[in-house]
Amino acid sequence: MGFKHKDIIALRDLTKEEILLLLDTAENMREINSRDIKKVPTLRGKTIINLFYEASTRTRTSFEIAAKRLSADAVNISPSTSSATKGETLLDTAKNLMAMKPDIIVMRHAISGAHYFLAKRLPCSIINAGDGAHEHPSQGLLDMLTMRDRFGKLDGLKVAIVGDVTHSRVARSNIQGLTKMGSQVFLAGPPTMIPTGAEKLGNVTVCNSMNEAIDGADVVMMLRIQLERQGKTLLPTLKEYSRYYGLNPENLKLAKKDAMVMHPGPINRGVELSSYVADGDQSHVMKQVENGVAVRMAMLYHVSGGELTAE
Amino acid sequence: MGFKHKDIIALRDLTKEEILLLLDTAENMREINSRDIKKVPTLRGKTIINLFYEASTRTRTSFEIAAKRLSADAVNISPSTSSATKGETLLDTAKNLMAMKPDIIVMRHAISGAHYFLAKRLPCSIINAGDGAHEHPSQGLLDMLTMRDRFGKLDGLKVAIVGDVTHSRVARSNIQGLTKMGSQVFLAGPPTMIPTGAEKLGNVTVCNSMNEAIDGADVVMMLRIQLERQGKTLLPTLKEYSRYYGLNPENLKLAKKDAMVMHPGPINRGVELSSYVADGDQSHVMKQVENGVAVRMAMLYHVSGGELTAE
Amino acid sequence: MGFKHKDIIALRDLTKEEILLLLDTAENMREINSRDIKKVPTLRGKTIINLFYEASTRTRTSFEIAAKRLSADAVNISPSTSSATKGETLLDTAKNLMAMKPDIIVMRHAISGAHYFLAKRLPCSIINAGDGAHEHPSQGLLDMLTMRDRFGKLDGLKVAIVGDVTHSRVARSNIQGLTKMGSQVFLAGPPTMIPTGAEKLGNVTVCNSMNEAIDGADVVMMLRIQLERQGKTLLPTLKEYSRYYGLNPENLKLAKKDAMVMHPGPINRGVELSSYVADGDQSHVMKQVENGVAVRMAMLYHVSGGELTAE
Repeated sequence: MGFKHKDIIALRDLTKEEILLLLDTAENMREINSRDIKKVPTLRGKTIINLFYEASTRTRTSFEIAAKRLSADAVNISPSTSSATKGETLLDTAKNLMAMKPDIIVMRHAISGAHYFLAKRLPCSIINAGDGAHEHPSQGLLDMLTMRDRFGKLDGLKVAIVGDVTHSRVARSNIQGLTKMGSQVFLAGPPTMIPTGAEKLGNVTVCNSMNEAIDGADVVMMLRIQLERQGKTLLPTLKEYSRYYGLNPENLKLAKKDAMVMHPGPINRGVELSSYVADGDQSHVMKQVENGVAVRMAMLYHVSGGELTAE
Repeated sequence: MGFKHKDIIALRDLTKEEILLLLDTAENMREINSRDIKKVPTLRGKTIINLFYEASTRTRTSFEIAAKRLSADAVNISPSTSSATKGETLLDTAKNLMAMKPDIIVMRHAISGAHYFLAKRLPCSIINAGDGAHEHPSQGLLDMLTMRDRFGKLDGLKVAIVGDVTHSRVARSNIQGLTKMGSQVFLAGPPTMIPTGAEKLGNVTVCNSMNEAIDGADVVMMLRIQLERQGKTLLPTLKEYSRYYGLNPENLKLAKKDAMVMHPGPINRGVELSSYVADGDQSHVMKQVENGVAVRMAMLYHVSGGELTAE
Repeated sequence: MGFKHKDIIALRDLTKEEILLLLDTAENMREINSRDIKKVPTLRGKTIINLFYEASTRTRTSFEIAAKRLSADAVNISPSTSSATKGETLLDTAKNLMAMKPDIIVMRHAISGAHYFLAKRLPCSIINAGDGAHEHPSQGLLDMLTMRDRFGKLDGLKVAIVGDVTHSRVARSNIQGLTKMGSQVFLAGPPTMIPTGAEKLGNVTVCNSMNEAIDGADVVMMLRIQLERQGKTLLPTLKEYSRYYGLNPENLKLAKKDAMVMHPGPINRGVELSSYVADGDQSHVMKQVENGVAVRMAMLYHVSGGELTAE
């Protein structure tokens, strides 16, 4: 089965079957990754540009390693230190990069919509590595893969997402992906941090408290407090936030026995998660990161026209 | 036919035949670039250091991609964030890099003369990726390749170069290269932005107005206003500048029908070029960038001792 | 003979035989480096992360080139511009990187002990690229290799180390390595810059003056004055420092005829070394840097489980 999209910008745009294809390919890629020689020649001769308008250690590194394991050439660009300071428009920067004939541009950009804007105008593939508060599809996919590893399926799972949902591209991609796959999503967070209208989405329930959300959950996904994205919303103090919306061994008992604890990282220890929970048996945080490279290999592979059976 | 130079620092130093050789090799490289697998093993095992003392997205990226398409290892260094802050001299930095046995150092440096200084003292090849207001030979070569693509020759072309010629290494490399190839160059710009004595160069005419320069031109090359390099020259306001030295659909009619419009980028839209012209049918701006990778592959290839027939 | 360590954090931890093995392998690597095609497939498919919490041109570049010459994939991370600013702990950053399955993390970090902390907790190899004032083992090894190149042995050499010994990880690694190999070390520097208790180490003599230290020395190793690491120690003025602890053609005569002059770089010309000495016949500064790539290739090779005879 083929993957028909030139770009991957949002899980909102993918069908259930396409998401499954990406997850299945990622499993294959993970298999490659665990061999002694991890490198395969699949994308040899392809050029991948990592265009990061916002700093990122883990996502940029994960995409760079994914590219190199597929034998592609990866070129990193952080425009903050370059032409962006000369006043060039995004489209001019992108067209210039395009003229160098990259096969894929992996981009992080603060403006939601920037990726669609470029994808329409450029012949190369655009992969969204995070855009403002809109979507972060590679994170959504790696989260779903981590859940499927544990439960063998996504259909029927009860997933609590707790924290600043409004400003979270991670939450948005998970909500889009999970509801498509048949999971039920329960949201909790300070009122200013829950997007209005969220309750109207199918399979999404807005809860009045964190306890209500995690009650009986298979998965408790804690979001990072991102002070840099808060804008003018009323931020409770961190201590208060932690009391009402932090996960600790006590409230975790409300979830199912052996429920998965997830967090996109980097963790503010003692705020979203107590260290005990972050490092505990139920934490799947490191498995999320590990799946990140495999999922990104799958994304690079499929936008390059790869078939699942080809590898 | 061989290329006898260890370094490429200025088009001033190359003969007409050597420039032709570089352009012909670049055409071959462009052919490689357009194949599905773009990578060739030509420079496998060679180490290329991109030593950029000034920020640059496009030139650094273009050289990095060129190196990787030839299977060389590219290492990027931006000394602003490293030893330069520890007070090390340029020669000490370069000798240290040299001791790591790179084959080529591609350098951008604010000081004209820095490249010659190193080239005399180091056994590896030095390629100039831009030095102050002196020369930018890879830009000159890609511009000439783009003109030759369109007209099949450079001899006899009428090329108008408009803007801040005094501070433009792009203009300087083009003037050196184009006059050598038999083109006629017409300069226009605010009086403080035209170098004194330019009119004494063979095949160069200093015009009293932009209209005079572009009248009947085959090529209109607009230079970027670089506020960061202006020093103490009298800068007209941007609005005034644009009125007298900006290219728009009206004054472009003075040039030959279907004259080429060129700009080294990044474009200050509405200043040097109206957006209508920048994105119009006569604009070859993207072709310039596209030729950039091919020209840089050719430069890396020839300073490494490659023969034209070898590839 | 095998190398039993997962990590290389300090020469203090290695036996004489292990140091000899690393030096012998480095000689082999240097041989590879001097061939026309310098690249060998030894570490193909391995991922090496250069995690530099402090800026560094030469050490980072040297490790990156070493990795590429062994055909490993090198990924550079400078956390100052990324998650470190988001308040992530070192262990969380490292565990996240670990989840991407690197084979080796090469790390520079200001805190002595950071490397041991990670090495105990992560399955991948940790190589110390400099940690505060503790150790800099790759520098120690390349210095010893440079001395062995000249004298054919290390046993019985008289090595003077002059300058700010207290704050010098270079000095510390050399003292550890050299005394293990049977050299005699003589220290000189301003009283606040000589660590208390140094005289109690076997084969180490603390001298009352620079002249006393270099008298009859085979090697004069000058340390860099690192203003950024001085903390609250009493720093003499640079001029005074240079008068009492700078090496010049006059005091160099006290050392053996043709004694080696060494410096880890970058040199403060006119402070630690007069330019005449730095660039003179007795200076081995560039040979040190050249040996750096070979030594780092050997380190990467042996922590990856390579045997000396395998290459």
